[in-house]
Order: sequence, then structure tokens, then C-alpha cells
Amino acid sequence: MQKTIDLSSCSVFEKLQELAVKPYDLTEEKSLERNGRLERYACRSKLLQLFFAAQRVSDEVLDCLQQVADELKLVEQFRKMRRGAVLNRIEGYESENRQVLHTGCRDMFAESPVEPEITRLARLELEKLKIFLQELEGGQLCNSEGKPFDTLVQVGIGGSDLGPRSVVEALKQYCRPGRTVRFISNVDPDDCARVLAEISLDTTLVNIVSKSGTTLETLANDQLVRSVMEKAGVDPARHCIAVTGKGSPMDNPKRYLRSFYMFDSIGGRFSTTSMVGLVALGFALGIARVMEFLQGAAAVDYGAEEEDIFKNIPLMMALLGVWNRNFLGYNSLAVLPYSQALHRFSAHLQQCDMESNGKSVSRYGEPVTCRTGPLVWGEPGTNGQHAFYQLLHQGTEVVPIEFLGFAKSQSGLDRRIDGTTSQEKLLANLFAQMVAFATGCDSENPNRKFAGNRPSSLLFADRLTPETMGAILATYEAKIVFQGFIWNINSFDQEGVQLGKILASRFLRAMKGDELEHGSIEVKLLDLVNTRAL
Amino acid sequence: MQKTIDLSSCSVFEKLQELAVKPYDLTEEKSLERNGRLERYACRSKLLQLFFAAQRVSDEVLDCLQQVADELKLVEQFRKMRRGAVLNRIEGYESENRQVLHTGCRDMFAESPVEPEITRLARLELEKLKIFLQELEGGQLCNSEGKPFDTLVQVGIGGSDLGPRSVVEALKQYCRPGRTVRFISNVDPDDCARVLAEISLDTTLVNIVSKSGTTLETLANDQLVRSVMEKAGVDPARHCIAVTGKGSPMDNPKRYLRSFYMFDSIGGRFSTTSMVGLVALGFALGIARVMEFLQGAAAVDYGAEEEDIFKNIPLMMALLGVWNRNFLGYNSLAVLPYSQALHRFSAHLQQCDMESNGKSVSRYGEPVTCRTGPLVWGEPGTNGQHAFYQLLHQGTEVVPIEFLGFAKSQSGLDRRIDGTTSQEKLLANLFAQMVAFATGCDSENPNRKFAGNRPSSLLFADRLTPETMGAILATYEAKIVFQGFIWNINSFDQEGVQLGKILASRFLRAMKGDELEHGSIEVKLLDLVNTRAL
Repeated sequence: MQKTIDLSSCSVFEKLQELAVKPYDLTEEKSLERNGRLERYACRSKLLQLFFAAQRVSDEVLDCLQQVADELKLVEQFRKMRRGAVLNRIEGYESENRQVLHTGCRDMFAESPVEPEITRLARLELEKLKIFLQELEGGQLCNSEGKPFDTLVQVGIGGSDLGPRSVVEALKQYCRPGRTVRFISNVDPDDCARVLAEISLDTTLVNIVSKSGTTLETLANDQLVRSVMEKAGVDPARHCIAVTGKGSPMDNPKRYLRSFYMFDSIGGRFSTTSMVGLVALGFALGIARVMEFLQGAAAVDYGAEEEDIFKNIPLMMALLGVWNRNFLGYNSLAVLPYSQALHRFSAHLQQCDMESNGKSVSRYGEPVTCRTGPLVWGEPGTNGQHAFYQLLHQGTEVVPIEFLGFAKSQSGLDRRIDGTTSQEKLLANLFAQMVAFATGCDSENPNRKFAGNRPSSLLFADRLTPETMGAILATYEAKIVFQGFIWNINSFDQEGVQLGKILASRFLRAMKGDELEHGSIEVKLLDLVNTRAL
Repeated sequence: MQKTIDLSSCSVFEKLQELAVKPYDLTEEKSLERNGRLERYACRSKLLQLFFAAQRVSDEVLDCLQQVADELKLVEQFRKMRRGAVLNRIEGYESENRQVLHTGCRDMFAESPVEPEITRLARLELEKLKIFLQELEGGQLCNSEGKPFDTLVQVGIGGSDLGPRSVVEALKQYCRPGRTVRFISNVDPDDCARVLAEISLDTTLVNIVSKSGTTLETLANDQLVRSVMEKAGVDPARHCIAVTGKGSPMDNPKRYLRSFYMFDSIGGRFSTTSMVGLVALGFALGIARVMEFLQGAAAVDYGAEEEDIFKNIPLMMALLGVWNRNFLGYNSLAVLPYSQALHRFSAHLQQCDMESNGKSVSRYGEPVTCRTGPLVWGEPGTNGQHAFYQLLHQGTEVVPIEFLGFAKSQSGLDRRIDGTTSQEKLLANLFAQMVAFATGCDSENPNRKFAGNRPSSLLFADRLTPETMGAILATYEAKIVFQGFIWNINSFDQEGVQLGKILASRFLRAMKGDELEHGSIEVKLLDLVNTRAL
């Protein structure tokens, strides 16, 4: 593949810098609605709409951003990724050297998948899942007393936790009656203790998820759960299943009732639509809903191959993010879903975005020339309005915002009070915040002034269904990938987690009393806290 | 009170700026341990210890920070706050004009409280709570069939939600058998629907919390819960209690079985140790644990009156935060508890800190001269290690960190694997991260380089008990207050939430079809999303 370049090499880079000196002023009269801005600054797809009139962009900026997309061949790179290019690498240095094929897990709805081999493998796993769910349903799989399993506890961390957890939480409304999914992630034994205290082990399946089969936290919790089971007279071999790499230490039918496979070409944080997410989701929702979820994601992957940024929601989001990050200079991004069901989705994105794009070297091992991934954080609205929005409105930092909203609630429970329903109140607050952040407000009381010009977008859908959830998830995955391409970094490795692992093993040796090197930082630090505490 | 000044007026301000040009280099050989730094850079109290060797400070910087504390009379201001000074005000402009007396709710363990009136009022409420809990226990308070209440649902938002929720979650291990506490906060009707789907209304007490008695979200959820109760044949008058201001619209014995009072001098985000938090906590833990929780907080309040920054943990944390924010220029703070029980504590701090110190005008209505409150965010370790730590280690942003850790787990459940327990693995990871962020690591592979010099502190305790939780909560409250004093802002109002409320009411009017102003932004925006969605 021809050597890729980064943002700073684009012909419009300096022009964008100039335009950023005096960006579109959202505080001017009718700033949001004049010249049909509200309607024009929108991207629409079957399931999702993106409204970005409240970003500090002009037609000229958007022309330049299209130019960035074209010159950096963002869509071409995305197409190559989906078709199996080895993009998880640092050229000239030892690196993972892998394909990036998470999109292949859901490419099951077109006439033929763009990368047939990964989709063939994914289909095999999906078939295994279907049979597994049928056996649970039909009673062939049950506990030793013949009782059905009503609870699934997923044990995993990072990519094996946050994505699946946020999606299962988001879709709880669609959960089959009597089925519950819980998660254990932290090596903190209190995490395990708390979950086990709230379930009945004898009707619980435990799904251990680790690609390598060697993740410290997950193996510790696997054993901790098994020891509790054994004490309770429950046979772990009848209750534990695994999602892991083929041939990993966890791919062991003696220890696990079933093994579902994950593949090297799918990174943890992009694995929600693989068995990492689908086993738990299938248990909760049934296979039909799982397919809807995959279909929503697949539609977005195909849509992300559109060259026109006005027809490509994730690409537009990526470029708007880069405008805020690299030209307006903002270093964080708040993702604020106006949907309580998405209460863990920002935490998943925090991982997916920050682990992918929190990098300082290019795909060629050179120092990056632009700032890369922002801090990503957020909590649902309207809750956040009563918490941190004060700083967003009147603090000394500007934080760009991505709002998420839905026309309808999931549950349908509602009540009209003072003429409007709760769902309408939720939406009224969402729209009001978008306007308030943009336009600000003057006052004679300096403490009641709002500077405005705090940019936001709104990703909007009809209702948070399995299909919509798949679409939103894939939209963010694609956005993150596009931004990595723009910064010319490898978004698919995570070397930054290695140093901590190495140092932790030294502390563990010091704790065991091995190789106690007198005066080492490990011993000194342990002594320090020991003196009063341990 | 004499006119207070801010950080930029301190005699050492320029000296600190000079020292910040070349701050202490944590990547040098033995940077953490030489000259007894590890032991010297620590503050110790009965319950908590603060270790800050991994901050980029030197003896000279610390001398200057002591000077800042002295010149700005931080402790004197704190003393005055506790004794009833009207600190919630903007001089010369309309403002709330209130005392700031959250510390008075827990000043019950000294011979005489420093502000007797607020403590007298708090004691009255605590007495009411004791009786209430006794009546629940003794069966005088029960449902219409004589069954005891086993669940309490707290309905509140912002300060009436995040603090209580994070503390109840943190102390679940101490929960009385058979008792459950749940929370409904969001106006999103799916929040209410989901909680109600998971409880038995007939044995549930609903605690509605709103100081003004007019909070939109809380009133909507109050009515939504009541309508579901009525449909289920449950009499709301027997199941609903309130925490509200005396004389508020919610102070109504016809609608609420009991009313507990909150006071004007206690802001929502500082109200966890008032009835806002204690009713739920008392229901879950019983009154004895509540008193331990208060005692932990009270001890910190007294300790915060110590002038020596080495003997005053919240003051030291405040000053280290200001060093990172205003001299090293970092705009965010990650709070990373190595304890799964604290999984919502960072969300509470996000509110408490960002709503308090996300301000742009001084206590005199002038523009601030320094950057104020940082973005506060975080998730528990070790989970975060597998999520966003990549960016913290190798991204282009530096994020200062406050770690929280505990020598012992809460539950005691554990298992030795490969020679160490899960709790030891948790601590090994915590210490390893502290060292890794500080020292970094070189490599011939540019993608495996860690720049280091990423500063952190560690707040450490023996075990997360009710008393320790009270101490940690009060430590952060005091830290936030001290930082507000340093920036010379009013940390106790939240004018920034008002604009959104006003604009939301316009959208609500547009939704009802009232006063439809053709071409208004409200109508246009609603039309825009209506076209496809609503």
C-alpha cells in the first residue's frame, strides 16, 4: 500500500488553520437557522440522523473537510480495512501485524460479504450460538437438577466487558422474561463477591471471555468463581462456558462446557459484535434480536464507504471532531446520551476511542505531527444537567459535545404532566441544551452570562432498538477508525498497556517475597503502606 | 469580611510560574525514592494517607504552595465557612446570599459544634430518622398488609442522586440482609420503567428528594411512580416519603408519610451527609453505620483546619491540583479508585467539583484571572487499565491522576493464585501504574516508548468502611472548597444551569402547541426531527 500521509500534509491544512482563527459565530442572531443551516447541516441514513448546525463550521470549512477526506483517501482506507488490509501494524518495527476485520462479523446481509473468510468464520460461531441457545431453550442444556439457566455472568475485562455490558444494559427492555445478565470485570475481589451475592449460582451460566486466555483479572475471577461454586456444591464444568481464541489455554472442553471463538483480526474494543458480545446478548434477547443488532451495524459499515461527507455520518463526525481537536484546539469530547438505557455507553466509547487513538507515533513509527485522540467522557442527560453542565456552560474550558437522542422511549411508560409527557420533557431539555451551549446569553449580572459558542452535534434516531443500537455502535467504531486514518496512527494496537503489566509483576514478586531487592521502589512502596495499613 | 484575593495576586505566583518551566523530573533515576521523597511526600491522618511523591513538585514548590495557603488565608476562610459566614454570594450582584454549612450536619462528635444552630437542626432530623428506622424495624411502619418494606427507591436528581447513590453503592457490603436501595433520577421515563420492573412496589418505600420541591425531573417521576402504584392497587400515601425544604410544595403530610428537612445553607452537591443521603443510607445500613459515616466526615472537617499543608490532606490535594491546573497547564483530572465499590464515586465528584468550580467570574463578579475547575472523570482500576489508560500513558494529552486504594477488600472473599490473592493483584497494579506513569520507559521501538512524567497522588486507607467513606467524601468536599477559595470564586451556586431550564420551557410550550411562533428556532428544530422521527 502506498505510504499514507496525515492531516498536516493536506493541501488545506493551513487554510483550515486560518479559518479556525475566526470560526462561525454561534452567538449571532439566528446563527443556527439562517440560510437553511439547520436543515442543510445534517446527514441522514435509514436509521440515524446527524445534525451539526451547532458546530462552529461554515460551508468553507466543510469544503475543506471534504478535501481532507479525499486527499487522505479515508474511504479508500476504510474499504481496504474491510477487505482485509493489514492495518494493525507499525511499519519498520515489531508490531501486531494483523488485519482489522471487526466489520466482517456482521457482513451477513449483503449478497456476498466483502471479505468472505472472516464472515464464514463468524457465521460458524453464530451457528454454534444458535444451537447453544436452542439447547438452553429446549432444556438439553440445564443444571444438574434439570433446571434451566436463568442468569448469565460474563467474566471479562476491557473489550470483553465494556462493549457487551453497555449494549446489554441499553437493550434490557428487550430482555426475555426471567433472564438476567451480570458482569464481573475487576480483579478487586469485591466485584466478584457482590455479583455472586446477588445471584443463584445453581441456575447461572458463567461465560469467561479472554482472547489470549491469559488475562490476569479474568483468570483470577474464573478461579474465584469456581471456588465459590465448588463450596456451594455446584459443578463448574456444567456451568462455565468460554469465549476465547482457538487453541488458547482456555480452549479446553474439560473446563468449559462450550467454547466460542474470537479471532486475531478483531481487537477487544471492537469485538462487541463478535461472540464477545453476542453470547450474552443472545442469552438475554434471543437470536432474532441479535440478528437485528448485527444488521444495524452492517448497514452503517456499508454507508461508511460513501465518499460524500454529507452522506456518511461516521466520516462527518470524524471530521467535525478533528476540526474541534486540531483547529479549534479542544482536548476533550463529552458524549451525552439523552437516554438512561445508554448509561454505560460513554464508558464503552471512552475505551474504544481513547485506547484506539491515544497514540503518539505514526504508522511509520514517527512522532505524530498533530494532537491525537481527545479525552472522551460523559453521563446521560438530563442527569448531567444537574451535575457537570455548570462547567460546560460557564467554566473556563470549552468541551465539544455529541448528544444522542431518540424520538420515542423504549418502554412506552409515560404520563402527561402540565401538558407534556416525560419523553417530551427529555427531548425539550436536549434541544434546549444544544441551543443554550451554542447561542449563550447575555446578562447585566456577570454571573448570569453565558459565553456560548460551545459546539455540539446531535445523533438522533427514532427509538433505541437492537437495530439502532447496532447502528450507533458501528457509527462510533467507524468514526474512531476514520480519525485514526486522519492522524495516520495505528488505532488497533495498545502498547501503552504493557509497561503497567511488567511493573505489576515486579510488585507481585515483591509481595510473594521473591527476589526481594532491598531498597527497590517496589519494596519501599510496599513498606510505606504496610507500616500503617496492610 | 476583608476582600479576598486570588492565586494570581500571591507573592509567589511568578515564582511558581518559573518553577513550572522545569518541574521535578520523575523520569530520572530513583526520582521517586531519593532523599526520602517517598516517605516525606506524604500526609497522614487517622483514617487516610496521601502519598504524592509522584507529583511533579519539589521542596521549593511545596514551600510556595504553603505560602499560597497562608497568603490566601485558606484555612481561615474554611474556618469561617464552618462557622456560618455567608460565602455563597457574588458581592455587588444578585446572588443566593447563603451560608455554607454542610459540615454542620456531621459536627456531632466534638464537645460543642462550631456552628450550634445548624447542628441542632441536623440532630432533630437525625432523631426523626432514628424513630423512622425504629418504626420500620418494629413493624409500626409497614404496608397495608402488614408486610415490612424491603426496598427503598430514591427519586432525585443531581445532588439528590449522585452522592447518595455513590455512597450506597460503596457500602453495599454493609447492607442489612433483605434490604435494597434503588435510584430513579432521569426524566427519561425508561429510567423509572426499568427500576419499577425490577422491584415489588407493595413492599417499597419511595423517597422523593428535592430541596425546592419543584425540580422538573423529580416531580415528573414522583407522579409517574404514583400512577404505576395506583394501577397496581398500592396506595401512594402509605409508600411515599419526602426529603425537602421546610414549607416547600413537597412539605405536605397528605402526600408524604414523612418529611425530612434539608436547609438552604446546604447545597445539593454537598448534601450527602444530610437527610438527602442519610435516609437511604439509614434504610440500607441502620443508624449505627450512619453515625460512623458521619464521624469519618467530621474528623476530616476538623483536620482541614490545620495550617500546615503537610498535616492537612484536602488542602494539600487542593494545592497540588492547582499546581497541575494553573502552572503545569493540565485541564483535566482523572479520579481512579482501585475499588469496584467506588464505581460511581468519580461520577459524584464530577458533579461536586465541576458544578462548584466550573466558573468564570470571581466572588466580586469580575472575570477570573486563572483557569478554574478542571474536567473530572474516572472509572475504577483495574478496569480502566484495559480501557483508557492507553491514552494516559501514550496519548498527546497529560492527565493528572488521583488514585484511591485500600489495603484490604470489603468482602474478604479471595483466593491465592500463583502465590498472591486478588486483593494483592489489585494493589500491585495500582502501585505499578503510579510508578509507570511517573517514570515512563524508553525503548528502541518508538511505539513502546513511555514518556513518563504523568503526575499522580494516592489517597490510601485500610478498608472502605462507612467511616472511611465519610472521610473520603469530606476530603473531596474540602478540597473543592479550598480550590474555590484559591480561585476566589463562589463554589456554592450554579447559575450555569438556568439558561437550559428557560430554553427547555420554550420547547415545552412549542410541543404543547402554545404560542407557536412560526420560524422560531424551537418550531424549526422540532419540525426537523419530526419530519422523520416523532
